[in-house]
Amino acid sequence: MWLVTEDLLEPIATGAAILGTGGGGNPYIGRLRAREAIRQHGPVPVLAPEELPDDARVVCVGGIGAPTVGIEKLRDQQSYDALRAIEECTGEKATAMISNEIGGSNSLEPLIPAAVAGLPVVDADGMGRAFPEFQMKTYFVYGVPCCPMALADEKGNIAVIQDVVSPLWAERLARAVTVQMGCAACYAVAPMSAEQVRRTAIPHTLSLARRLGEAVAEARSRGEDPVDAVLATCPGKVLFAGKVMDVARRTTAGFARGTLSIDGLDDFRGERMSIDFQNENLIARRNGRIVCTVPDLICAVATETGEPVTTEVMRYGLRVTILGFPAPELWTTPAGLAVVGPRAFGYEHDYSPLGPASRSAPCSSE
Amino acid sequence: MWLVTEDLLEPIATGAAILGTGGGGNPYIGRLRAREAIRQHGPVPVLAPEELPDDARVVCVGGIGAPTVGIEKLRDQQSYDALRAIEECTGEKATAMISNEIGGSNSLEPLIPAAVAGLPVVDADGMGRAFPEFQMKTYFVYGVPCCPMALADEKGNIAVIQDVVSPLWAERLARAVTVQMGCAACYAVAPMSAEQVRRTAIPHTLSLARRLGEAVAEARSRGEDPVDAVLATCPGKVLFAGKVMDVARRTTAGFARGTLSIDGLDDFRGERMSIDFQNENLIARRNGRIVCTVPDLICAVATETGEPVTTEVMRYGLRVTILGFPAPELWTTPAGLAVVGPRAFGYEHDYSPLGPASRSAPCSSE
Repeated sequence: MWLVTEDLLEPIATGAAILGTGGGGNPYIGRLRAREAIRQHGPVPVLAPEELPDDARVVCVGGIGAPTVGIEKLRDQQSYDALRAIEECTGEKATAMISNEIGGSNSLEPLIPAAVAGLPVVDADGMGRAFPEFQMKTYFVYGVPCCPMALADEKGNIAVIQDVVSPLWAERLARAVTVQMGCAACYAVAPMSAEQVRRTAIPHTLSLARRLGEAVAEARSRGEDPVDAVLATCPGKVLFAGKVMDVARRTTAGFARGTLSIDGLDDFRGERMSIDFQNENLIARRNGRIVCTVPDLICAVATETGEPVTTEVMRYGLRVTILGFPAPELWTTPAGLAVVGPRAFGYEHDYSPLGPASRSAPCSSE
Repeated sequence: MWLVTEDLLEPIATGAAILGTGGGGNPYIGRLRAREAIRQHGPVPVLAPEELPDDARVVCVGGIGAPTVGIEKLRDQQSYDALRAIEECTGEKATAMISNEIGGSNSLEPLIPAAVAGLPVVDADGMGRAFPEFQMKTYFVYGVPCCPMALADEKGNIAVIQDVVSPLWAERLARAVTVQMGCAACYAVAPMSAEQVRRTAIPHTLSLARRLGEAVAEARSRGEDPVDAVLATCPGKVLFAGKVMDVARRTTAGFARGTLSIDGLDDFRGERMSIDFQNENLIARRNGRIVCTVPDLICAVATETGEPVTTEVMRYGLRVTILGFPAPELWTTPAGLAVVGPRAFGYEHDYSPLGPASRSAPCSSE
């Protein structure tokens, strides 16, 4: 058990935004919101999945919508409203909160209802990264019911997806409601048991995010390369480094979709990388050839500072390094790939796991 | 108390489709669906509002979506599924069903869950006609909560609008869910008390629909003018008569929207009427001048047979007579007009009640 205090929000947000593969909501906004809740209600205890009491009732909460909207129309404590709605709907009281995804803002989202309700959060999440759609959680892939789930907006509207024929239908209905709610809402899912969390969650990702963020800050303070520090903490590789030339981005059907183009610098001079995104980075092409796809992680960090650059704030001129990390094993099974492999996003490619770097690049994992 | 038996479905559907002002769902499809339920479970008792026990719990059900879709993707017993969902959600058992609107199909919708559950229906509805949007019910205008309301589709998906800041928000969220559900779903609203029904419903509209349908059938069998029979049963006036020249219709955002153009025949030769519709007929212009608007009723019947012609089956070449009927008084108050007056549909006109016929025409009410 450890405590999330105000001073830990910055490293967690930084690390989670790296793992968030461009999405999961803006880390700065998420940090400000969580800080308010902690200032008001005190620090939040973090329990590892193995520390959960067997009779725990764990509610997953998250923000839903387009990150491009989430930085303009700020959420308040709607995940607490959604928690209360799901408790009322199921007749069960939550005893702990858990993140839907380790993303910039969504990694911190459970801290808000946890602080308000005086509950702990679990050191785990349902993705081990961020994904754009509701059904894309290891919980649901491995048999946890995705319903009922409650959606709340800042106006006071509450909708409950009560029963669906598949988790994809929960996404369809919830997304349509979210668009009406103004494209930025919060949700809570019916409670999970401790056994379900231990069996289906990606464990210890809040700790990992914290360690990543601390490593980046420490490297910066020592004048060391923060990208090296990231790779020393979380095994992965450099896919590309360069200058952002274009971000073709549109907010549509409840998502921020688009393509990012980067011209190579240093080792990558004369080359080009393009990355398609749907809230999160989905597929990276180097000189037209695919080098990394979902569910492996494609993460952009500022080359100088190691700060993650999420898709909603990506812009022309930024110097970024693109990192690749292997997906958690729960995602690389046939059941996992059916939900988050390239074909689940409409691509005509099979998943091929992140191969060895095609040119020399700093990578602590090899 | 009277019983809806199989043989009464045809006159009720005919009369309700006349009152339905072009919408409320296809009367033929609605009749077939209600017939199946009655054949399987027996006739359904009808109680006048004044016959309801004081402790009655009355659930309003209806179809929602675009009538153009409802004739291609048939509903089954989803209003029963929605009833069960709302009972589970509120913890209350329904003791009677009530119609949301007297429209071709929606007038009969409550008979389906009523037959399945062995409950009576109330001889009343929430519009005294049909309107395209969920919030457009006298129930809600006069203070009955519009939430929770449950939506069910034919696949087995259930969504509940739990809490909204206004009835218009229930429409927005429910419509978005309906579009995802395939643009034809059913809903049920949290139970009303007998007092609420008596105070806010338009009473005796199921009986009126039955009488209208019986009058049309009787006139036809006697070789008399069925349009005269309609006007003798329900005071109103002939607005126009002619041949349909064009129907510009599109199914969009969960509605069937468009404009109908009619060239005059007989007394109206050389003139033209155009009618805008959104599921239901909204505004009628004769030679460009507005002659009837919501909430007054604009109803198209086949000139020869008196059969109502709903907007989803309206087509070039049909000979139709356009009838106007005054709106129920609950709609012509400032509170009513704010929800269903011309401005609520985006027109820059105030409501002006249906004036005297501008040319001689058969009208039993004058």
